[in-house]
Amino acid sequence: MNKVAIIGVGHTKFGKIEEKGLMDLLCEASLAAIDDSNTNDKIFDTVYVGAMSPESYNHISGVASALVDKLSLIPAAADDIKNGPASGGSAIKAGFQAIASGMSDLVLVVGGEKMTHITTPGYITSNVATLTHPEAERPHGVSLPSFAGLLTRAYLEKYNAKLDWISDIAIKNHKNGALNANAHFQRSISDFMKSAIQKGKGTWKTIYEFLEDDKTNPIIADPLRLFHICPISDGAAALVLCNAEKINQYCDTPIMISGIGQATDTHIIFEREDITTLKALRLCSEQAYKMAKKTPEDIDVAELHDAFEILEAVQSEDIGFFKKGEGAKAAHEGLTEIGGKIPINPSGGLKARGHPLGATGVAQVVELVWQLRGEAGKRQVDGAETGITCNFGGFGNNIISILTERM
Amino acid sequence: MNKVAIIGVGHTKFGKIEEKGLMDLLCEASLAAIDDSNTNDKIFDTVYVGAMSPESYNHISGVASALVDKLSLIPAAADDIKNGPASGGSAIKAGFQAIASGMSDLVLVVGGEKMTHITTPGYITSNVATLTHPEAERPHGVSLPSFAGLLTRAYLEKYNAKLDWISDIAIKNHKNGALNANAHFQRSISDFMKSAIQKGKGTWKTIYEFLEDDKTNPIIADPLRLFHICPISDGAAALVLCNAEKINQYCDTPIMISGIGQATDTHIIFEREDITTLKALRLCSEQAYKMAKKTPEDIDVAELHDAFEILEAVQSEDIGFFKKGEGAKAAHEGLTEIGGKIPINPSGGLKARGHPLGATGVAQVVELVWQLRGEAGKRQVDGAETGITCNFGGFGNNIISILTERM
Repeated sequence: MNKVAIIGVGHTKFGKIEEKGLMDLLCEASLAAIDDSNTNDKIFDTVYVGAMSPESYNHISGVASALVDKLSLIPAAADDIKNGPASGGSAIKAGFQAIASGMSDLVLVVGGEKMTHITTPGYITSNVATLTHPEAERPHGVSLPSFAGLLTRAYLEKYNAKLDWISDIAIKNHKNGALNANAHFQRSISDFMKSAIQKGKGTWKTIYEFLEDDKTNPIIADPLRLFHICPISDGAAALVLCNAEKINQYCDTPIMISGIGQATDTHIIFEREDITTLKALRLCSEQAYKMAKKTPEDIDVAELHDAFEILEAVQSEDIGFFKKGEGAKAAHEGLTEIGGKIPINPSGGLKARGHPLGATGVAQVVELVWQLRGEAGKRQVDGAETGITCNFGGFGNNIISILTERM
Repeated sequence: MNKVAIIGVGHTKFGKIEEKGLMDLLCEASLAAIDDSNTNDKIFDTVYVGAMSPESYNHISGVASALVDKLSLIPAAADDIKNGPASGGSAIKAGFQAIASGMSDLVLVVGGEKMTHITTPGYITSNVATLTHPEAERPHGVSLPSFAGLLTRAYLEKYNAKLDWISDIAIKNHKNGALNANAHFQRSISDFMKSAIQKGKGTWKTIYEFLEDDKTNPIIADPLRLFHICPISDGAAALVLCNAEKINQYCDTPIMISGIGQATDTHIIFEREDITTLKALRLCSEQAYKMAKKTPEDIDVAELHDAFEILEAVQSEDIGFFKKGEGAKAAHEGLTEIGGKIPINPSGGLKARGHPLGATGVAQVVELVWQLRGEAGKRQVDGAETGITCNFGGFGNNIISILTERM
């Protein structure tokens, strides 16, 4: 199996990017990654695009074919890879396998989504709900946020945890996002509160009081409120992958993809043994650790998929950092902050960096590359040498974990 | 690079399958392939699904994740692969790379589409038109059939060919389809004519007269008429791929995937040097021949992408069987019939087997497997040992060619 190195990364600003369309965002991230990799005049063998719903949101299909044309990378092979909100992670895996197999030496992987222009109420939620089971779940009106609400209630009860601890994850991620110039929200929740006070919307003694106020933080899927849930965002992120034997001409700071795992779980959530355990993550992270000959103790930094803040708590357990039921408490105790035992989502995560669906899995790996290169600026995890991601498809029925390390 | 064998194939009836949904069709083809491969009790590593528009046509996304659940193949990795009408071919390539890389040993590849339930006029044509260029082409009202009409006119004029020769391709493919129990149309065009005569719709001296009658064969995209264009179909096809070193336990008639190529061309068709040349097919078939150490002269049977009958003529040239401009004439002279110099589309092709978009690329390879195993019944190409496909994405801006041979 050929070894695979990341030799270039690109990342647009995430957020409400009114002036750019999906193809503009994909091109911007791609060109930044190509530039970063010093492969401007090289022939790319393959391009993979991870985008969940460009057909529905942007009336474009064959995005990868269109992108190779826009980037003048013809005749590179090009395919779109889909796995719901884990489309980015799946696109990276496709790129990894293209090189590992010997079929390609130089591959561009791009993830992106353009969503914020959609103003029809409920359009995106019901579009994303096409991931749920069409007979057992969807006809009953469940959506991904409602599952997250149910999971939160089950978790709090089973492990005697507090909703404030889930809020602590949002507080941490907004604090980290404030240090990330590409983040959708670059403000701490304290900043949001101060701004609300200045605008005369109310007065609160603590962040927790602010977060319990229905006016400033309404309930979306009981018990989850607005600040427990990631936003809808526009944005794209890109990687240049290269056969590790051929990197010397391009790059002296390669980051290796040394482990990749992917696993599925039941489509119907009710059929899982325990709703608070992500079996697919346990399996896929085990695959990634085994492939890289690492353990959870070796990991210096992680990017997890906090589409809902409860997910970061659960994932931090099933990926092996904390015992079952201790993830939320660990966040509350500061163990997952930058400088803590295992920093999670220094980028701000989906909560603050934003969540342009297909972009997220790629953006997670871009953040790891910056951290492992020591280029993460104010949010740098000191001496980070090994990182791992969790990119979450459906409601945990298809999860990908990618382990990266310095060469 | 690990070698990849096809050890099982499955294929539903193509056509208007009212009683089955997309997931039913995908399951039926998958189970047939698994059964054929003797891997019923085995652990699949990965499942790839090629389907162009299940989100739009069937309101399902994450089809691959849903399929592994339905087939009880959890926790197999699962991804959806998209490349327009070449999604099936791209899914096979993904499966090939999963095994060639050493990441997987046993992979299920399924292609399918469920389309005939859609009754909104123009819905499918405009959905497929999302493949065209969003600024240079689509706003001007072009669709894939209109491009095929323009290509036909250009070809007939440039190479002094006759429209009847394009009709001859349809006549041949319907003749072949009549021998294929899975085909959408299992009737020759003579049969259609006889039936029209019996119903008192008219009298015609020859098939060509019948095919020039606006009543029975209306113009769709001048000069192309109904019988020059493939139907909209429901259906699915599946392959079980296996690391060639591990096939002995399952199968004694493996068919090897010995070459795969994929290449892109300009998104805007106007920008191509010559509209009558499919540069992407030239490149990707060269890749496949080179990888398999074969030449066009070695090929015994081919499955080409005759979504429009003109495409079979052009593809038969660019894949290396005939000189430029001689493909339609060769078909007219019978060289591409079963028993001819190079039999093309013994299955009936897209014209008669039907064209459930994502299924086509997989169905092409299923037909090659049957031909190479000597299991093609009345449409068997005698002694076929080597076959090749052309699966056509967009309007030729992303083409895949797969070369298969007996072990």
